[in-house]
Amino acid sequence: MGLRGFGSDNFSGVLPEVFKALEESAFGHQHSYGEDKYTEKAIEDFKQIFGDDIDVYFVYNGTGANILSLSAFTHSYNAIICAETAHINVDECGAIEKQTGSKLLTVPTFDGKLSLGLIHNHMHGFDDQHHAQPKIISLTQCTELGTVYTHDELKEICDFAHAHDMYVHMDGARLANAVAYLGCTPASITKEVGIDVLSFGGTKNGMMFGEAVVFFNTTMSKEVKYIRKQLMQLHSKSRFIAAQFSAVLKDNLWLKSAAHANAMAQKLANAAEQIPSVSITQKVEANEIFAIIPREKITKLQNECFFYVWDEDAAEVRWVCSFDTTENDVIEFANLLRQELC
Amino acid sequence: MGLRGFGSDNFSGVLPEVFKALEESAFGHQHSYGEDKYTEKAIEDFKQIFGDDIDVYFVYNGTGANILSLSAFTHSYNAIICAETAHINVDECGAIEKQTGSKLLTVPTFDGKLSLGLIHNHMHGFDDQHHAQPKIISLTQCTELGTVYTHDELKEICDFAHAHDMYVHMDGARLANAVAYLGCTPASITKEVGIDVLSFGGTKNGMMFGEAVVFFNTTMSKEVKYIRKQLMQLHSKSRFIAAQFSAVLKDNLWLKSAAHANAMAQKLANAAEQIPSVSITQKVEANEIFAIIPREKITKLQNECFFYVWDEDAAEVRWVCSFDTTENDVIEFANLLRQELC
Amino acid sequence: MGLRGFGSDNFSGVLPEVFKALEESAFGHQHSYGEDKYTEKAIEDFKQIFGDDIDVYFVYNGTGANILSLSAFTHSYNAIICAETAHINVDECGAIEKQTGSKLLTVPTFDGKLSLGLIHNHMHGFDDQHHAQPKIISLTQCTELGTVYTHDELKEICDFAHAHDMYVHMDGARLANAVAYLGCTPASITKEVGIDVLSFGGTKNGMMFGEAVVFFNTTMSKEVKYIRKQLMQLHSKSRFIAAQFSAVLKDNLWLKSAAHANAMAQKLANAAEQIPSVSITQKVEANEIFAIIPREKITKLQNECFFYVWDEDAAEVRWVCSFDTTENDVIEFANLLRQELC
Amino acid sequence: MGLRGFGSDNFSGVLPEVFKALEESAFGHQHSYGEDKYTEKAIEDFKQIFGDDIDVYFVYNGTGANILSLSAFTHSYNAIICAETAHINVDECGAIEKQTGSKLLTVPTFDGKLSLGLIHNHMHGFDDQHHAQPKIISLTQCTELGTVYTHDELKEICDFAHAHDMYVHMDGARLANAVAYLGCTPASITKEVGIDVLSFGGTKNGMMFGEAVVFFNTTMSKEVKYIRKQLMQLHSKSRFIAAQFSAVLKDNLWLKSAAHANAMAQKLANAAEQIPSVSITQKVEANEIFAIIPREKITKLQNECFFYVWDEDAAEVRWVCSFDTTENDVIEFANLLRQELC
Repeated sequence: MGLRGFGSDNFSGVLPEVFKALEESAFGHQHSYGEDKYTEKAIEDFKQIFGDDIDVYFVYNGTGANILSLSAFTHSYNAIICAETAHINVDECGAIEKQTGSKLLTVPTFDGKLSLGLIHNHMHGFDDQHHAQPKIISLTQCTELGTVYTHDELKEICDFAHAHDMYVHMDGARLANAVAYLGCTPASITKEVGIDVLSFGGTKNGMMFGEAVVFFNTTMSKEVKYIRKQLMQLHSKSRFIAAQFSAVLKDNLWLKSAAHANAMAQKLANAAEQIPSVSITQKVEANEIFAIIPREKITKLQNECFFYVWDEDAAEVRWVCSFDTTENDVIEFANLLRQELC
Repeated sequence: MGLRGFGSDNFSGVLPEVFKALEESAFGHQHSYGEDKYTEKAIEDFKQIFGDDIDVYFVYNGTGANILSLSAFTHSYNAIICAETAHINVDECGAIEKQTGSKLLTVPTFDGKLSLGLIHNHMHGFDDQHHAQPKIISLTQCTELGTVYTHDELKEICDFAHAHDMYVHMDGARLANAVAYLGCTPASITKEVGIDVLSFGGTKNGMMFGEAVVFFNTTMSKEVKYIRKQLMQLHSKSRFIAAQFSAVLKDNLWLKSAAHANAMAQKLANAAEQIPSVSITQKVEANEIFAIIPREKITKLQNECFFYVWDEDAAEVRWVCSFDTTENDVIEFANLLRQELC
Repeated sequence: MGLRGFGSDNFSGVLPEVFKALEESAFGHQHSYGEDKYTEKAIEDFKQIFGDDIDVYFVYNGTGANILSLSAFTHSYNAIICAETAHINVDECGAIEKQTGSKLLTVPTFDGKLSLGLIHNHMHGFDDQHHAQPKIISLTQCTELGTVYTHDELKEICDFAHAHDMYVHMDGARLANAVAYLGCTPASITKEVGIDVLSFGGTKNGMMFGEAVVFFNTTMSKEVKYIRKQLMQLHSKSRFIAAQFSAVLKDNLWLKSAAHANAMAQKLANAAEQIPSVSITQKVEANEIFAIIPREKITKLQNECFFYVWDEDAAEVRWVCSFDTTENDVIEFANLLRQELC
Repeated sequence: MGLRGFGSDNFSGVLPEVFKALEESAFGHQHSYGEDKYTEKAIEDFKQIFGDDIDVYFVYNGTGANILSLSAFTHSYNAIICAETAHINVDECGAIEKQTGSKLLTVPTFDGKLSLGLIHNHMHGFDDQHHAQPKIISLTQCTELGTVYTHDELKEICDFAHAHDMYVHMDGARLANAVAYLGCTPASITKEVGIDVLSFGGTKNGMMFGEAVVFFNTTMSKEVKYIRKQLMQLHSKSRFIAAQFSAVLKDNLWLKSAAHANAMAQKLANAAEQIPSVSITQKVEANEIFAIIPREKITKLQNECFFYVWDEDAAEVRWVCSFDTTENDVIEFANLLRQELC
């Protein structure tokens, strides 16, 4: 492969600032399991963003963050409502069912976004002992299809959930890209709209490893430390997740990185949509582009510059930009597309 | 309620022959946990029907039978393919997910029946560590919509499953009604088409309690006795399930009872379809009728003679006949329908 | 085997009164899943004994009753304290761990009874994320060794548990034998001492199948109906468990039956302790006798009249009397013992 | 705290060579989820040590490594035999029970080491449906008490296990310290004695995060990749665990680091045993020292130089040396001990 790829934002490495933070914390002794000064500092950094009335837990990865979040709000007889395309449904090997015992009630969507209309179909069977009881709605911001919920869309879902004695989880593996797109504060589309718990992404946005689970509903987080341990998500050398988070949160580096990735995706989309044989299938609001391209060219393009096929039947592909995607990467790939597809 | 209802086949009591068998086994000492003469005899009775190369396990109820069946063939990282309307999906409070940890991959159907075309959508992601691995297809015979798979339809699904290193489970809570409808041997639509494991219904067909799990694939049943115990499905006084099964299997009582229920359903369907405002929505092949009726009359009818609404939005109701539904029950209910709906 | 055995109280059949109740409820239609008049009546019968402020759930068997009880009070990160000899530890094939995910903290005892001194060893690690959090103490009344907790012993454990923000479960598979021995009211050694939840035995005391879970702590039973369904313990034809319970609770039949079994055990113990080579190892307070006998005679005795070896290494055996053990059974067995062991 | 502590080997940071490896792999694009060149290289490095016929899976932490190992060999109806002091029993918040559903059969030991005599007590109940079936023995090398199994001790346990159709897991969070102590090859006390699966420690021996699970029994590892994903132990940026392992395996750095930690522990033990009021309670064979010291001095010492109390009742403390413990650290701490305790 002569070009850097558009496979996924986890194909990229780490931000230089992240690496520097790891270097500064790498040596010498610290208490383990979260009782170190780095962990204390990073939690403080999250409170600067979201306010003091939150609970923050660091975990290893996104699946861990999602399951920790959902476990705090569910029993095995509950059900979790999510989009059919949700990462928790299609990309975690059934880990949600294994770990929570709960049923996933999935909703087909056009653009990866839930809405009251789409959720409605699963809002029944309450108080019926034969039916798994819907208890939490899990949405992804930005979605697995690169689209972004607006403030009002989120608020509507949260209000609806709370009115039905339910909770809302946000899978924010790419929250940064959504915030960057919307140009809002992080709190405004999470805590302030009523999200109960947030998987706050780190790895896809320039960290080596590590995610954070942020509880805005602190009534339900009282015993989360035990859940984290049982889920094998407690890092003994906690400082190394914490130090990275402090680095990305500092001076809004996480948002700047995401804004850059978004801009690269926009640039690539602009170039691609000029090619008649390319049909972009979703709004490009964040760092992902979905497009139908001539089927017979896919393999050749992948060999030049790797990306994933999203939907085999439709010849739909996905191109993801990352914090370290350069303008030159985009230009070269756009050239390649033009060369092969025009 | 002045009339006996059409709510469910578990609203009825027990067959007189079943009660007699309980009486004969009720007193005196027997070894417990399946090491008694009644259990031995009942297993022998099943072998008369299905051949010697089977493994039979008695359990308490249908959910227990289904989960015991599925547990023997799955790990938590596997997925189970079933119809969206399957009992295991909608009527067991998420017990499958709790007990097996596996993901249910559900298929929308028109008539409750799976087919290769409908299954196809879930046949992907094999060998991909991110995807729950499809391992077993669970079908219901007769279906939750009162329809019956033919021999060839079943064989096609079983052949397909085995060709993909998968298994097939049959939820036969109402197997008797299907066999009675098809006029075939029980083995011909289970063991002989390649079903790996069968939930053989007892309770809905005149027993007081108890179901049987019949393994045709005895390679996978080696450790099932431990699974049954862990699933709380091992009855200490095993004789009382066994004696009932011997009673219903004797002289094909189970099939005669089901044939009667089917006939009553046919009779009721014939009467109902004469009423212009009644629209029967599924083929009446077994002991269940699904019909759309004038919404405003439903409550009044239910008060006279209980039945369930199947689909609130569509005003679709379900009428179930049982082994003890009489011709008079049907005539009176048909009269009631005519009186209220014509 | 020329004699009826002393193997277990689940080797016996059903009480005549129980059978009569089954007969009276066997035919005709009833609503299913607990919405029938028999279930309503049986719950009322329990309230006559324990007061109105209880929640009662019928289940199939003892393991189901224990797991339903414990599930209502635990998360998977909790631990359950019990005697090493507890049925939940040694006789349920690890079902507790499978179903609750919780750790069992077991306590060696001399007589099957827990005490504050014995529990103390596990009362640590609270608030430590690395340690499963002790949350409930499960004790068996009467114990698996045939001994009986006194009112004061129970109260001490309950007070201690509640003082430590923990709960107490009583496995009362043989509660009747304990109440009969103590000559107290059932409430006095359960609800009144602070037991939170009780597995109330049916099967071992003359029922065909069925146990009850009685919640005295009704704060924790709000969602138990979903747990029961997921645990496969909800009987569709609920009337058949309920009718049996009404029969045994009527006129204290359950206590009379247990008193009889206790008396038979006492009689057998009196005879056995006259034999020099027999050493009774536990106080005979209920319907079980534990004795060390000459090892070389065990098999011959078992062939004449079945019983279980309790401890192979010690040549300790167990003899259990039942509601249907007759004076003649005891006399013949005592004669056999004298003949073989003297 | 004026001194670096002896709290745990996870209080230390990372080896310089590890950090250098992270730096070299930190930037640029790589395929994710293990399909990168670093992962390929690290697996090759393990094969250099243990031979080609192994399967290696990288995970995040020790609890993850242990549960992945055990999950591959157990069903929920199995039991796992381990020492009462085993990390899987006392330090993982019941994660084993939650994740495997299996029962832990724990064995009291004097020195943390299992033996056939100690295991014997749990070798019963095979083929009995009421008993969790023992399937795997989990031992820790070196043990949680700082002792080391010899080659022959391990072989005896493995031979015994295999003769009983059971498997053996080695929790090797501190395997390096054992190999360094014994002066043997890593394969000689793992693969060659018959260990089926090994948790190979990384974090406690100078890595930032990451452990490896090495299957010597590759018959049982066919579907482990799905288990790893469900256990949330698959790192998207796999290169960062792999690169660290290549660094520590290179030129036996892992063994040199462990040998250093062992030597520091020996030096500290030698100094401590000169102090009359200090009583060393376990053989110091690796990097841990257990000692009973005057209770009233513990807090003061901890304030000067942190370490953990191991057994409150006995006033027994634990001192752990690490790859980065210096001779000066030991000298200063020994001085402190003499000053306070003499």
